[in-house]
Amino acid sequence: MKKLPLNKAFTLLEPGPVVLVTTHDGLQSNIMTISWTMVVDFTPVFAITTGPWNHSFAAMRKTKECVIAIPTVDLLDKVVGVGTCSGTDTDKFAKFKLTPLPASQVKAPLIKECLANIECRVIDYNKKHSIVILQGVAAWVDAARKERRMLHAVGDGTFIADGRKLDRRQAMRAKLPAGV
Amino acid sequence: MKKLPLNKAFTLLEPGPVVLVTTHDGLQSNIMTISWTMVVDFTPVFAITTGPWNHSFAAMRKTKECVIAIPTVDLLDKVVGVGTCSGTDTDKFAKFKLTPLPASQVKAPLIKECLANIECRVIDYNKKHSIVILQGVAAWVDAARKERRMLHAVGDGTFIADGRKLDRRQAMRAKLPAGV
Repeated sequence: MKKLPLNKAFTLLEPGPVVLVTTHDGLQSNIMTISWTMVVDFTPVFAITTGPWNHSFAAMRKTKECVIAIPTVDLLDKVVGVGTCSGTDTDKFAKFKLTPLPASQVKAPLIKECLANIECRVIDYNKKHSIVILQGVAAWVDAARKERRMLHAVGDGTFIADGRKLDRRQAMRAKLPAGV
Repeated sequence: MKKLPLNKAFTLLEPGPVVLVTTHDGLQSNIMTISWTMVVDFTPVFAITTGPWNHSFAAMRKTKECVIAIPTVDLLDKVVGVGTCSGTDTDKFAKFKLTPLPASQVKAPLIKECLANIECRVIDYNKKHSIVILQGVAAWVDAARKERRMLHAVGDGTFIADGRKLDRRQAMRAKLPAGV
């Protein structure tokens, strides 16, 4: 994985992909599949909806750390598998043959097979709406990876792969943050 | 526009599309382009990041209403146009030849040219992180529309169109809400 400048990390979540979120509770690592995420600030700050119904939530609250990993189309069945079993009784890294890599600033692992990984610290939690606020502190991309199409969950059991790319950089220039 | 059951409305935002958000301040309607959105609950509840830097924010706070409209690939230049000018000095419906339609439960208009529209009420506001919480109260889809591919903003001035659809309904069945 190659370091991605932090000011570009929001571009990994802005398109709205399904993501894998890793945690490490001090004893073991876990992964959950999440599609309810949002960029909140360019620095970057992210919001994700999660709560006690996810086994990972306890570790995230306790350690105040996680990694957001971005899977691609070729990983769909692992993404669905991770999302349909629980860390209470499953070592998901082993079961789905995903490889944990040490992160630089948090104990939660990166996922080697993913396109990108964002190390995050929990900076706030809105209990009423189950929204966790995350500050991205380091970001990594697999620059050599050929398959780069992200996945989008529809919510009815179907998914959509990234299609055609459309360039409107010139028209958008005035609205883009510096250096992106 | 044909009514969409409310329990399916979250599937319009879960894939992470760029959306148009309309408001009506009592005098006139406005539109903003937003890609920082998230599903928070299936009922549906949504979160969007916005604040005083958007002209529409004042109307949204005052009226506690808005409509989330879902544009498709063919509307990209209108989406970019709406996102790069301000309602302070522009009638965006007129400038971008978008057609306001009366909504059923809010004064903010639906957008006729869009694939779908979700009427929303503002139910909470997290000022610290500029997150507005919206309850969807009615949803509409243009069932006759041929172009149905949504758009995803990358955040660097490029956009990605929906590509291939992948069906994992069987594997996901246990995790899906009833009736979706």
